Amino acid sequence: MSNITIKTLAKELNVSVATVSKAMKDSHEIGAATKQRVIALAQKLNYTPNPYASSLRHKKSKTIAIVLPEVADSFFSVAINGIEAAAQDKGYHVLIYLTHENFAKEQEILKDFQNGRVDGVLMSITSETTVNTHVQELYATGMPLVFFDRVCGEVDTACIVTDDFASGYKATAHLVERGCKKIALLSISESLAISNNRMEGYKKALLDSGRMFNEADVILCSNNNEKSYAVIKALLNTPGRPDGILATVEKFTTNIYLACRELSLSIPGDVKVVGFANLATAPILNPSLTTVTQPAFEMGKVAATMLIGSLDKRNYTLKKEHIIIPSELIVRDSSGGG
Amino acid sequence: MSNITIKTLAKELNVSVATVSKAMKDSHEIGAATKQRVIALAQKLNYTPNPYASSLRHKKSKTIAIVLPEVADSFFSVAINGIEAAAQDKGYHVLIYLTHENFAKEQEILKDFQNGRVDGVLMSITSETTVNTHVQELYATGMPLVFFDRVCGEVDTACIVTDDFASGYKATAHLVERGCKKIALLSISESLAISNNRMEGYKKALLDSGRMFNEADVILCSNNNEKSYAVIKALLNTPGRPDGILATVEKFTTNIYLACRELSLSIPGDVKVVGFANLATAPILNPSLTTVTQPAFEMGKVAATMLIGSLDKRNYTLKKEHIIIPSELIVRDSSGGG
Repeated sequence: MSNITIKTLAKELNVSVATVSKAMKDSHEIGAATKQRVIALAQKLNYTPNPYASSLRHKKSKTIAIVLPEVADSFFSVAINGIEAAAQDKGYHVLIYLTHENFAKEQEILKDFQNGRVDGVLMSITSETTVNTHVQELYATGMPLVFFDRVCGEVDTACIVTDDFASGYKATAHLVERGCKKIALLSISESLAISNNRMEGYKKALLDSGRMFNEADVILCSNNNEKSYAVIKALLNTPGRPDGILATVEKFTTNIYLACRELSLSIPGDVKVVGFANLATAPILNPSLTTVTQPAFEMGKVAATMLIGSLDKRNYTLKKEHIIIPSELIVRDSSGGG
Repeated sequence: MSNITIKTLAKELNVSVATVSKAMKDSHEIGAATKQRVIALAQKLNYTPNPYASSLRHKKSKTIAIVLPEVADSFFSVAINGIEAAAQDKGYHVLIYLTHENFAKEQEILKDFQNGRVDGVLMSITSETTVNTHVQELYATGMPLVFFDRVCGEVDTACIVTDDFASGYKATAHLVERGCKKIALLSISESLAISNNRMEGYKKALLDSGRMFNEADVILCSNNNEKSYAVIKALLNTPGRPDGILATVEKFTTNIYLACRELSLSIPGDVKVVGFANLATAPILNPSLTTVTQPAFEMGKVAATMLIGSLDKRNYTLKKEHIIIPSELIVRDSSGGG
């Protein structure tokens, strides 16, 4: 690493360290000629300020963290693009932490933030997270925090979500309208707000169309791919199998398709399928997949913009609010077409 | 943020700051009783050391950066999982920077690293990167650097790649064996080593089977989705269209399928397709996609393990070496089956 420090510049120019520092920041306290001399020498010596020294003085690292369950999921990877676009635009750096849906890992990561490595945190909680002490503890230190998608409702801060209830409703009403008599809902969690909201939408759509809501039709699937495949196959391999499936998590889709193939069930002939998914390949699946497509890029961008906005303004506090960006139901062949 | 510093602890315990610091690091210079007192108070006051203060003293931030073209691509997102697994295991933090295939952005990001924000860099270059001055400049500052997938061959450091030549060869030989007379290769760059290696494998496989290598069959597609669709559709909408396509980049796959559908061409009847892809949905595409599947997780993990290994050992220098982890050709319906 280069050993040129602010002291080197000050000594060389025969001015104080404070003068160099202020000149580098284009302070009005420093004359134009001095500024020019400082900047010329800094460029010549290839000097860039040490961000951590700056961080210690200003208690700002210009770094935000994203904490999320996984990256190999098209919702989260597209959301990262949105977050990163907003961060780059504002000169912020982005640390990424993956919990792999593990609550203990999430606790550990949040604990580590208390030492000041980051200025703010964007977060989507794990499907295992049922208590929020770890989040409350971090929030109590004054760490700015914004949730996106999977939120922790009890914390008084901004949450960027999609219209999960309405999406669950629309998708279920579509399956009812396509003639499904028994619609199963595949969920990843009994505690996540988004899972519950999607389920409430599903329930309301069933009741509104004169159907019964049957708790046994709500199937909790595992994060583990093999286990979720086994559950889905068992569900479809019974005489009373569903003729419609609403998958509230993208990664269940592949397993539904593979299980149907294994059991010689036709989609949409025997089973109609709608998935919450941002898959670029949805239109070219066999058959093409009817999706609830979330505004992933937008959600990430809005979440990061709000967090960074609160960091850049003095004394601006994020307040409790839910910003809802709607999803879209895109009807394709897997549910029997439009 | 908490205002408990190492000084608070020292004052409270009536010992020196150095004693607290050494006790926190379990130094042999400090007695067990003192250590216990320090740790008990640190826990009571919820004190964790400031990482940037520590970084300034040790010139280590325990942070590595990943610089890569995009995250909404299953190769890169799975590779990130591998990198992050290795980093978490060794107590390192991971900063992620996306270039979006933009060379100017890549230059800017690397320039910023010269100020010591990170201890080391993992990198996969953009498809636009044809000169390496920016990489050489960073490397000259002593920054440890490891390339994965898209490497910059002229820099004397470790590169983790897959067997691109052999994969291009195998995929092409498979299309020849399946009866293709005219095989087009879709590429993203004329300069990337991986693109060239895949093309050289393609060329060799054609020549070995007694075919001609025709430069016009190598099609440069754009990073822009609409533009690449237009190029692919034009390619397939001519009388002399190819009857086989080898897509060396995952994101071209969806466009090939959509263009064939638009033009009423059957895959594999009219056009056989093989794609370099890590798509979880490859088996459920219409038709299922024959893939060259790269060891994305492994490549990321090995790259991060090597980089962190060099950071954790004093005076250990990364040397110029190519570590090759083989890809696998998985034959499915899009190329006419096995």
